[in-house]
Amino acid sequence: MSINSFGHLFRVTTWGESHGPAIGATVDGCPPGVMVDEAMIQHWLDRRKPGQNKYTTQRREPDQVRILSGVFEGQTTGTPVQLMIENTDQRSKDYGDIKEKFRPGHADITYWQKYGIRDYRGGGRSSARETASRVAAGGLAREAIRALVPDVQIAGYMVQMGEHAIDRGQFDWAQVEQNPFWAPDAKAAKTWAAYLDGLRKSGSSVGAIVEVVARGVPAGLGAPVYGKLDTDLAAAMMSINAVKGVEIGEGMSAAMLTGEANADEIFMGQGGPRYSSNHAGGILGGISTGQDVVVRFAVKPTSSILTTRKTITKSGEETEIITKGRHDPCVGIRAVPVGEAMMACVILDHMLLHRGQVGENRGRVG
Amino acid sequence: MSINSFGHLFRVTTWGESHGPAIGATVDGCPPGVMVDEAMIQHWLDRRKPGQNKYTTQRREPDQVRILSGVFEGQTTGTPVQLMIENTDQRSKDYGDIKEKFRPGHADITYWQKYGIRDYRGGGRSSARETASRVAAGGLAREAIRALVPDVQIAGYMVQMGEHAIDRGQFDWAQVEQNPFWAPDAKAAKTWAAYLDGLRKSGSSVGAIVEVVARGVPAGLGAPVYGKLDTDLAAAMMSINAVKGVEIGEGMSAAMLTGEANADEIFMGQGGPRYSSNHAGGILGGISTGQDVVVRFAVKPTSSILTTRKTITKSGEETEIITKGRHDPCVGIRAVPVGEAMMACVILDHMLLHRGQVGENRGRVG
Amino acid sequence: MSINSFGHLFRVTTWGESHGPAIGATVDGCPPGVMVDEAMIQHWLDRRKPGQNKYTTQRREPDQVRILSGVFEGQTTGTPVQLMIENTDQRSKDYGDIKEKFRPGHADITYWQKYGIRDYRGGGRSSARETASRVAAGGLAREAIRALVPDVQIAGYMVQMGEHAIDRGQFDWAQVEQNPFWAPDAKAAKTWAAYLDGLRKSGSSVGAIVEVVARGVPAGLGAPVYGKLDTDLAAAMMSINAVKGVEIGEGMSAAMLTGEANADEIFMGQGGPRYSSNHAGGILGGISTGQDVVVRFAVKPTSSILTTRKTITKSGEETEIITKGRHDPCVGIRAVPVGEAMMACVILDHMLLHRGQVGENRGRVG
Amino acid sequence: MSINSFGHLFRVTTWGESHGPAIGATVDGCPPGVMVDEAMIQHWLDRRKPGQNKYTTQRREPDQVRILSGVFEGQTTGTPVQLMIENTDQRSKDYGDIKEKFRPGHADITYWQKYGIRDYRGGGRSSARETASRVAAGGLAREAIRALVPDVQIAGYMVQMGEHAIDRGQFDWAQVEQNPFWAPDAKAAKTWAAYLDGLRKSGSSVGAIVEVVARGVPAGLGAPVYGKLDTDLAAAMMSINAVKGVEIGEGMSAAMLTGEANADEIFMGQGGPRYSSNHAGGILGGISTGQDVVVRFAVKPTSSILTTRKTITKSGEETEIITKGRHDPCVGIRAVPVGEAMMACVILDHMLLHRGQVGENRGRVG
Repeated sequence: MSINSFGHLFRVTTWGESHGPAIGATVDGCPPGVMVDEAMIQHWLDRRKPGQNKYTTQRREPDQVRILSGVFEGQTTGTPVQLMIENTDQRSKDYGDIKEKFRPGHADITYWQKYGIRDYRGGGRSSARETASRVAAGGLAREAIRALVPDVQIAGYMVQMGEHAIDRGQFDWAQVEQNPFWAPDAKAAKTWAAYLDGLRKSGSSVGAIVEVVARGVPAGLGAPVYGKLDTDLAAAMMSINAVKGVEIGEGMSAAMLTGEANADEIFMGQGGPRYSSNHAGGILGGISTGQDVVVRFAVKPTSSILTTRKTITKSGEETEIITKGRHDPCVGIRAVPVGEAMMACVILDHMLLHRGQVGENRGRVG
Repeated sequence: MSINSFGHLFRVTTWGESHGPAIGATVDGCPPGVMVDEAMIQHWLDRRKPGQNKYTTQRREPDQVRILSGVFEGQTTGTPVQLMIENTDQRSKDYGDIKEKFRPGHADITYWQKYGIRDYRGGGRSSARETASRVAAGGLAREAIRALVPDVQIAGYMVQMGEHAIDRGQFDWAQVEQNPFWAPDAKAAKTWAAYLDGLRKSGSSVGAIVEVVARGVPAGLGAPVYGKLDTDLAAAMMSINAVKGVEIGEGMSAAMLTGEANADEIFMGQGGPRYSSNHAGGILGGISTGQDVVVRFAVKPTSSILTTRKTITKSGEETEIITKGRHDPCVGIRAVPVGEAMMACVILDHMLLHRGQVGENRGRVG
Repeated sequence: MSINSFGHLFRVTTWGESHGPAIGATVDGCPPGVMVDEAMIQHWLDRRKPGQNKYTTQRREPDQVRILSGVFEGQTTGTPVQLMIENTDQRSKDYGDIKEKFRPGHADITYWQKYGIRDYRGGGRSSARETASRVAAGGLAREAIRALVPDVQIAGYMVQMGEHAIDRGQFDWAQVEQNPFWAPDAKAAKTWAAYLDGLRKSGSSVGAIVEVVARGVPAGLGAPVYGKLDTDLAAAMMSINAVKGVEIGEGMSAAMLTGEANADEIFMGQGGPRYSSNHAGGILGGISTGQDVVVRFAVKPTSSILTTRKTITKSGEETEIITKGRHDPCVGIRAVPVGEAMMACVILDHMLLHRGQVGENRGRVG
Repeated sequence: MSINSFGHLFRVTTWGESHGPAIGATVDGCPPGVMVDEAMIQHWLDRRKPGQNKYTTQRREPDQVRILSGVFEGQTTGTPVQLMIENTDQRSKDYGDIKEKFRPGHADITYWQKYGIRDYRGGGRSSARETASRVAAGGLAREAIRALVPDVQIAGYMVQMGEHAIDRGQFDWAQVEQNPFWAPDAKAAKTWAAYLDGLRKSGSSVGAIVEVVARGVPAGLGAPVYGKLDTDLAAAMMSINAVKGVEIGEGMSAAMLTGEANADEIFMGQGGPRYSSNHAGGILGGISTGQDVVVRFAVKPTSSILTTRKTITKSGEETEIITKGRHDPCVGIRAVPVGEAMMACVILDHMLLHRGQVGENRGRVG
């Protein structure tokens, strides 16, 4: 059991610390014959890259990925793919304060309590920098999915920042790539821009909700009990730094519905069943229905803020701390490409698992 | 990779269908020397047992657990523990309707689409009956936890039914065992009773939110990235039938907070760090802080309702269905002991994982 | 990580002790739609059953298997299959001697040293009785293989008992089922019968070598490094009680060959490559070649003998022991069906793994 | 399930191809606080390094390891350790012949048949070069073992080359590091030198048998059925390139012994049980006894020889091949450090597994 790995057949192990020489992902189990090169992976990393606008950390990392193994003459060979990203912006700085004090809301204290040692430089292993490795692995997963089921589309966007939610009535896919917040609602994007400007100037931060949709996923992915598609998606999203809640379809609101309101009635459409609604988020009994797979997750506000907070030192003395440095006022923004990557990894993994146990054919309706 | 298993070192594989001869849990990796017998497991099963009051299904199963292996002279031996529960109330009935039609909101259609075959009797493998196996395994996990860290306490309760939430200001642990809803608020229990009576009579159903708390969990459980305590808890809860959302601590609401509001400041208490608040739900960076571990999950309304819904048959014809039979108007009620069981399994598993990698000693503060 | 499980996608967890109420196998990941019933599993169990002739233990167990889950209307459903065998011949006897003393060559002392508790009745978990569960699982695996690749044939036989080896020049498949030793050589069977009669009367025992062949296995099963087909076969065979060595193809003798002698030259046959010889045992680089997959394993002599041996008690006192009871003078005999079962499980597992990663198509030669 | 990984809690995933930019090992689950640096790992790599004498391949690789993560200020942090070795000696050469033809005895044909694509440069993933990653991981495992149980010693040596075995009566530990063959018998080393010179000049090759011993391993490591110490050792050794057989203790010869001859009688020594002999190879019922753990494995002769062999091309035409290039006439020599590394990884993994399930205390004798 490897604690830095996820996936069953398409298995990703991420490694590396924020301020070590490099980070990366060891990807095992990728199908052979997938056309891929560094530029295709880089495309997805660039979307997540910090320092692209004033709303994300000003740390400047080129985040250049190198493929060290598993790809030959432009195709995966079926052997492990090593995706390495060197850390270049390791500013020499004085970590003295962070070295002795635990930052509230960060993993400083728990890593210390668990291991009795921690790489305190920039959060070490618990830094959000680790998610770059996931995005690289997700880029590979997307190409593998494309080779298997060409019309799967995976896209994420932000639906809420602090108290400000999008207007679902104004949902517009075209807007998502048009603003720095991946907002599918131009008006919300404007509101968020003003709101975040204020937070950034005051050294504060805020949480957000990200939604990721996978369209075109075949019915039949997933499995009973603990190989459920929603179980793996919940784990995948909850494993992202700062995530505190995960929802499938109706999510927590399902608690407020009656059975009548929640029922997705079934009809026969062209090419298969169709549904009157998608409260289920595309998953029934842990298995995909063929509808959109819809996952949402909440990202807590960055714990690094310019307001003084009470804390203690390693030796147990009470003190105070201000977390200076280059930080995102809303880490939820950069979580969008990460959520997409995790969705891609989970969907691909379940495609392979399904093919392994059941083969290409499935039960047909009609 | 086994899709009906959960846990890493304390590993539970559940098996069995709703209307087969038996269901059970194969539990591997339990520490040796844990004092346990059938009565101690039975205690927890009885809490989940259907037919105990008018608010849960009238199916009458004694749910008598038998320990078939792994326990000798009242102690676990370290070898696999087989916990079997025979199905006794297999009413002979006509399944003709369910056999051909897919019930909306159930896994009927997706099992069919995945496997091309399904045990349609009472939901087969996707029946909530499977959760009895989890409760049995959780009973064993509780005893093993007690042997390791005697003061861990795990308790669940309902905090919302439909639109009706408890009043957190009236939270009273003593109430939880005093009403059929595991409500920590006597007034809410009364409201729910009336509300559910109405739903039951009209053949409707409603969702609910369950909260499970683990108190006394040592700091340091969990691990980076994919062995995170919250990752495993999210997977554990999402794997329960009908669950659509999982929250740790502040959960989805974390999106609405600022960094200042969300910060759990750290002080030095007797015996270790203490915190000003617990927005984090007892977990930072995937590792336990020593505070209460707090998980919440939403259970959707039972899909089996007496209102006619549109659906299709296996052969693709559009039709209608009414799901008669013995069903819970609010499955969230019986999900409380299941959530507790999953919490127990995850906590024990992480105790063993931590001891495996790190040993008995941890980093000390102060 | 479950320590009583084997296999990746076709995953078998065995449970149960020699003198507990039952033993069994929880089989997860079986493909759906495999035609199987209890009689088909029973067929393989009957081959292993003790007490069938004077050369195996006189313990009389009907070893009647029950399928408790995962099969519906004569077909697997894709959900876990529980195969249970009740222990009926639990002779009430005085275990006092074994309870305090460790039998040399048995796992008595190591179970005690590991767990600090042991089920001393008949060896408990370490009894060869556990292998009945494997044979049951193997029976299921055979049917699943048949559904995937109908012409795979798996057969085992004994090639050596003590100093007496078969004459490879006289190898005759037809003989295997004609004698109680699964000997493919009638003359060797006669020699062994006389030899074993002597051993049995003197209360002694002897080791043996078993060979298992899988014919018709498609090329391409296995994977680099740790998913190698030979790696999994070595683990599978070494995990059988009393096995001390495992060989693939040429085995240990490969050490004595030159590169020229060991080379299996390649030619083009009808339907694909053919080879001048099979020193490799059907596996190159961990991946099947399409030739016969050939595995051999050595079983040590039964440690239960009627000669007094020196040993110690739990409290550390030196003493002596004679192991009376019903035992096999050559456990290798009953290991033949067990080796076949493990081969079947490994082959099926790798069929599913291959299909999962690569799909139905493979690289073609010619 | 990751096919390029081994180990349960101490989990090693190797990656990289012979002629790609780099190879390496991603090591997850290492205990924190282990003192280690690149020089300590390098020490073990240097023992395996090619080109050190005329008996091993003249490929000159510095095999310089870099630690890219998981170590901070000279100690492991408990997070994944990335060990990378750059490939520097990637001679530009014409691979045309190997590209189209399958070398007999190599994995060329099976990789092609499995994946439909292969990195033909120097064997790609199936090259013995992969074992450098294992040696690096083994070096880390050794330091972690030392931190847990300081007096464990792991050492390997060659016991047979072709027909020439060592004289066990002349066994001398001091000799092992004194000759290029890791021979514990000075006379055998001389014989082998002359023999191998002849083989090398004629472009031939020969097999060998390697023995690896772990001394000081505590009693109680291992587990029933599939977590057996010998099961994992068998898998570990069989997964090494070119290995065709694995033996524990008496190994295949156990088949020839009677129960009396094979019995390791038990006495009480200072500090615990002691045994009259060690036919068992230090393992009973899959669990360590405290005696030396003894494993042997056979390495087949290098398939790359200068004699013309018959083979076929990708398109199925019959042809011939001579494998020129820099090759070891006896790969068994360089397998010695690899076998040691695998032993170290398995022993450490089982130390962690045991501590996870059972804790520090074990059942005591006396």
